[in-house]
Amino acid sequence: MTVELICVGTELLLGNIVNTNAAYLAEKCAAMGLSCYFQTVVGDNQERLTQVLDCAAKRSDIVILCGGLGPTEDDLTKETAAKYCGRELRVDDHSMERIAEYFAGRDIKPTENNWKQAMIPEGAVVFDNNNGTAPGMAIELENTRIILLPGPPNEMIPMFEESVAPYLNKLTPGVIFSQTVKICGVPESKVETMVKDLIDEQTNPTIATYAKTGEVHIRVTAKADDKKAANKLIKPGVKELK
Amino acid sequence: MTVELICVGTELLLGNIVNTNAAYLAEKCAAMGLSCYFQTVVGDNQERLTQVLDCAAKRSDIVILCGGLGPTEDDLTKETAAKYCGRELRVDDHSMERIAEYFAGRDIKPTENNWKQAMIPEGAVVFDNNNGTAPGMAIELENTRIILLPGPPNEMIPMFEESVAPYLNKLTPGVIFSQTVKICGVPESKVETMVKDLIDEQTNPTIATYAKTGEVHIRVTAKADDKKAANKLIKPGVKELK
Repeated sequence: MTVELICVGTELLLGNIVNTNAAYLAEKCAAMGLSCYFQTVVGDNQERLTQVLDCAAKRSDIVILCGGLGPTEDDLTKETAAKYCGRELRVDDHSMERIAEYFAGRDIKPTENNWKQAMIPEGAVVFDNNNGTAPGMAIELENTRIILLPGPPNEMIPMFEESVAPYLNKLTPGVIFSQTVKICGVPESKVETMVKDLIDEQTNPTIATYAKTGEVHIRVTAKADDKKAANKLIKPGVKELK
Repeated sequence: MTVELICVGTELLLGNIVNTNAAYLAEKCAAMGLSCYFQTVVGDNQERLTQVLDCAAKRSDIVILCGGLGPTEDDLTKETAAKYCGRELRVDDHSMERIAEYFAGRDIKPTENNWKQAMIPEGAVVFDNNNGTAPGMAIELENTRIILLPGPPNEMIPMFEESVAPYLNKLTPGVIFSQTVKICGVPESKVETMVKDLIDEQTNPTIATYAKTGEVHIRVTAKADDKKAANKLIKPGVKELK
């Protein structure tokens, strides 16, 4: 089962922030056995977001969009995804109540644009946000699922752990698990030559070398039903490397 | 003039590392006045890399690929780009000499696969690597330029500063420059309501709000011929916000 990440935000395109969300989501998805072949960053622009979403939805089983669920005018991920999926946005009473509670608990008066966050594409699964006002959601289409998550990591990460991971775990059996052997004092080209037979022979686990500053990493990655089974595949390879 | 970034590496797709290269390159390109609308991450896979490169080359004036220039078998960015551009790979004597010097200076014997890094697509501009063995390069096509950079930041960043920035500066007049006003104690929805007239009226500088953990950022971004001129556009806006 394949997953694809789309992070939405002009500040990523301007290099104002580093895309730690993509690394977090990629790692979590890999640990669940989801194969991720593409990550994209696009700005808060309806036309370009639609273009990227269309491409992703056609080639991946699951598309995770992250960012652009805020209350302000430049946040248009939900509107764009709903339009792409042909779903109307409807008021979700549960989300409305949660937003009202969020503000009441902080003694802040919500502004008009806050209620925009309670609008959900019809039929979507809602993921509660326990650290903000933007609920997450999953729009289930015939050949793909489009998951929308808020961009701020302090909202996205707890939502992923609490709601999205259990949702995804139901869809996918298996894990992808990696172990890394770190080597220093030998250049990457030589390391590869030394382990070339292992690289060529292995399909599960796979073995790849990476040049780092002052060291070389050999990553051994296995796909299996669970972490224990993956470890069983990885360990002999790692032992041989050492 | 538009630029698009493609970072190549399975370790990015697995979430093993955070894509700081994309943030660095995005920031540098924006500072040069290049508009970046898309960033993509793809693995060391010829078919998928070609798919992404084709898409980027058709819609952007400059495509920067980062990663996959190493000496090992899984490094295939250069081979893929050369094939896409219809250019043969030829031995570049200058790069060959530099690689030989690199190893001689470290008293290491190069392995056979190291010489692969001296192969350059015909007609490409070569960017010397003063911190490793993979030269960078620019393949100039009729409607786009494809720039290839090594992935390790300690090689990529100096190469960008020393060779790629001057190369790009010749192509593009102008800068994109941002200043950020940080606000705490007021939710994003309210901040936007307070500055909505400025957001709606302004086209240069543009104004956008971002929810952060515990604070809201208002980013004011201007495009102008140089940093001084951009600052002149930004300052009144920033002053009004404050």
